[in-house]
Amino acid sequence: MKNIFIHHVFFWLKNIDNIADRDLLAEGLLKLSEVKTIQRFHIGKPADTNRDVIERGYALSWFAEFKNAEDQASYQTDPIHLKFIEDYSYFWSKVIVYDSVDK
Amino acid sequence: MKNIFIHHVFFWLKNIDNIADRDLLAEGLLKLSEVKTIQRFHIGKPADTNRDVIERGYALSWFAEFKNAEDQASYQTDPIHLKFIEDYSYFWSKVIVYDSVDK
Repeated sequence: MKNIFIHHVFFWLKNIDNIADRDLLAEGLLKLSEVKTIQRFHIGKPADTNRDVIERGYALSWFAEFKNAEDQASYQTDPIHLKFIEDYSYFWSKVIVYDSVDK
Repeated sequence: MKNIFIHHVFFWLKNIDNIADRDLLAEGLLKLSEVKTIQRFHIGKPADTNRDVIERGYALSWFAEFKNAEDQASYQTDPIHLKFIEDYSYFWSKVIVYDSVDK
């Protein structure tokens, strides 16, 4: 994978281990993934792997691939994104984002 | 993206901001990406985005996509992986790994 902008987001739930909340947030992420500039996406949860270096406290992960920084920037103000924040930010207590471009 | 195992690794350098070290580690990651079970990979660095929720202290990121947990497990003991650790672990001070499977 080259010439891409990776936006990888990890969500911690306000109600930890609340599966219903997690599933609702996952539904929201599915709708969020309809933003036109998103080339590929993945809605995930921690795998069963467990070593010291592995962060597995998050409830959901969302991987979104954009063509470039401009597309990701436009996504930030996309109505679908703003609606997602409005409707679903209630669920999370913490978010960590990793934005990566080609080395 | 479905039915995949995402292995996303973030590296902090021992010699912070040492571009030569970063480039050597990136060369190592390119060799590491030759492991046969890796379906897609991306060697990255932090984008220019900068908000409170964005973690941008790492020097390099490595995204690796496997078909399933078994392939990722076998990668852990793959000779190419073991050689990478032997040759390149000198460079990093911290590693954070996110292993994610389909929600």
